[in-house]
Amino acid sequence: MLRRGFLALGTAAGLMAGGAGAFAQVDPLPSWNDGAPKKAILDFVSRTTAAGGADFVPVDQRIATFDNDGTLWTEQPVYFQFAFAIDRVKALAPQHPDWKDREPFKSALASDIAGVVASGEKGLLEIMAVTHTGMPVEAFSRIASEWIATAQHPRFKRPYVELVYQPMLELMTFLRANRFKTFIVSGGGVEFMRPWTEKVYGIPPEQVVGSSGVVKFELRDGKPVLIKEPEVEFIDDGPGKPVGINRFIGRRPVFAFGNSDGDQQMLEYTAGGEGLRFMGLVHHTDAAREYAYDRQSHIGRLDKALDEAIQRRWTVVDMKADWNTIYPFEKK
Amino acid sequence: MLRRGFLALGTAAGLMAGGAGAFAQVDPLPSWNDGAPKKAILDFVSRTTAAGGADFVPVDQRIATFDNDGTLWTEQPVYFQFAFAIDRVKALAPQHPDWKDREPFKSALASDIAGVVASGEKGLLEIMAVTHTGMPVEAFSRIASEWIATAQHPRFKRPYVELVYQPMLELMTFLRANRFKTFIVSGGGVEFMRPWTEKVYGIPPEQVVGSSGVVKFELRDGKPVLIKEPEVEFIDDGPGKPVGINRFIGRRPVFAFGNSDGDQQMLEYTAGGEGLRFMGLVHHTDAAREYAYDRQSHIGRLDKALDEAIQRRWTVVDMKADWNTIYPFEKK
Repeated sequence: MLRRGFLALGTAAGLMAGGAGAFAQVDPLPSWNDGAPKKAILDFVSRTTAAGGADFVPVDQRIATFDNDGTLWTEQPVYFQFAFAIDRVKALAPQHPDWKDREPFKSALASDIAGVVASGEKGLLEIMAVTHTGMPVEAFSRIASEWIATAQHPRFKRPYVELVYQPMLELMTFLRANRFKTFIVSGGGVEFMRPWTEKVYGIPPEQVVGSSGVVKFELRDGKPVLIKEPEVEFIDDGPGKPVGINRFIGRRPVFAFGNSDGDQQMLEYTAGGEGLRFMGLVHHTDAAREYAYDRQSHIGRLDKALDEAIQRRWTVVDMKADWNTIYPFEKK
Repeated sequence: MLRRGFLALGTAAGLMAGGAGAFAQVDPLPSWNDGAPKKAILDFVSRTTAAGGADFVPVDQRIATFDNDGTLWTEQPVYFQFAFAIDRVKALAPQHPDWKDREPFKSALASDIAGVVASGEKGLLEIMAVTHTGMPVEAFSRIASEWIATAQHPRFKRPYVELVYQPMLELMTFLRANRFKTFIVSGGGVEFMRPWTEKVYGIPPEQVVGSSGVVKFELRDGKPVLIKEPEVEFIDDGPGKPVGINRFIGRRPVFAFGNSDGDQQMLEYTAGGEGLRFMGLVHHTDAAREYAYDRQSHIGRLDKALDEAIQRRWTVVDMKADWNTIYPFEKK
């Protein structure tokens, strides 16, 4: 696969950049234009990994957390997990003839996203319940894997996993080459992400933190299974992100990247530790190559966190100006 | 430190055993006597890592989970975390003059464990609340680290972390050398274990699954902190163990080791997957070198799980017969 090829290339470049001076000319972040964000990243990694330096961070404290939707991959025109849920409603509809006359299913079957959203939280939870629960965790994992391997993004006509950001792949590879551990800390469902994050991002399932529903241990026909229940357990968004970080990772990050107000507390928590810290936001400014949205968007709203980032001089990536490549497939 | 030295030795031995045939004579499990458990472990690792073999397990599925208390370290005469809580009550007592006349604190201050236990669940929760909550997670981590570095076991007169089982250190090293990922899945508090598991077991904080209390994100004097609240969030015991495994690890283990009825569901869940599986129990049979207890014990009771293990031919380690060394310090 093309994308795997780029990941492999990225790894080699990152290792060289993290290694001896002989390879110092190799740019570990080739998709980043020269500018403040690239300089800030290189500077941070250089200072935190310089043994004996004032800003040195021991390896076991090199924790880097990344939001997923809008930070590592695209989140428009709707969160990809939402597109998955709509597709699942369509796949399950033949077993539920009543859905064609009943909201929120009627709108979902007509691909009328506005209609689904108009059904409110109750409607959305109903869609999540029928598409994400009532089955063993391993069955859900198979369904999510199948969808991610076959479904296509409506605008780019490509599998969703190809809509990951090449500059962020390079960044994560660069960090790992410098012995940072990379984690996803996403508002998305943890069981939706885990089947593919290792292949796509190089992040194994136990390094993925996300929202989750209640899961119950049961014996079914004498076989032990874990059943996904239609009840929310944990929302890994806003103040939930530092809580999730503590629960799953157990250390305060020294490096965090997000793109929306839902990442604000994660960035604040990261900033609140001792020593040198890196806080970054992806600002979606490129309608031609991706999407442009911020303060007014219903998805990935970036408003209060943008104000705080500007005021506290956190790194704000201007996607249009700072990234010469957005998606891996552009490099073909 | 002596223990670190043994860990380093263990690593080298493990790597060699996992490597080429030229080193095949090096025993990766020198503290295990020849016998059924050792044979079962070597056989399992050999079959699951033989590329092209019928029982081959891909690297990303090589998940091994270990209970902690009584499986990786001693749990008598009381769980070590309970000894920590009692010591904390004593340390905090000067600020609480009323404790000397009030249960369960009165018993705790007199080191009267039976008295504390007699105070029931309410009393135990009260002790946990005053010793484990009401502070930022990082403050608790420091307190736990200090205690673990200084407190001594009443019988062995050694730091608690020296009461880890040398055969299990060798086993985990051997598994990791064969590209298994090792996880702790313990009924103990996750924040009590994480400060020291990497140094002692080679298991980083994010690979430690345990019980936890509610944690809340707050701004204190404008600084973002996570405060430990006196409310139970998750009990990682019994049926909670497979739930915790799914939540934190996201995959079904192929290898699991426990020592009590609290591990039964973890072992059943492990056994319930496809392909070759390993389920093991440590049976405490050595009163001279450690402790001997099983069906009647108030701590680490092994009764129903032992019956199931015998019936299903899981591996049961007879500590006295199967381990020639129990603690690393015996090897001095």
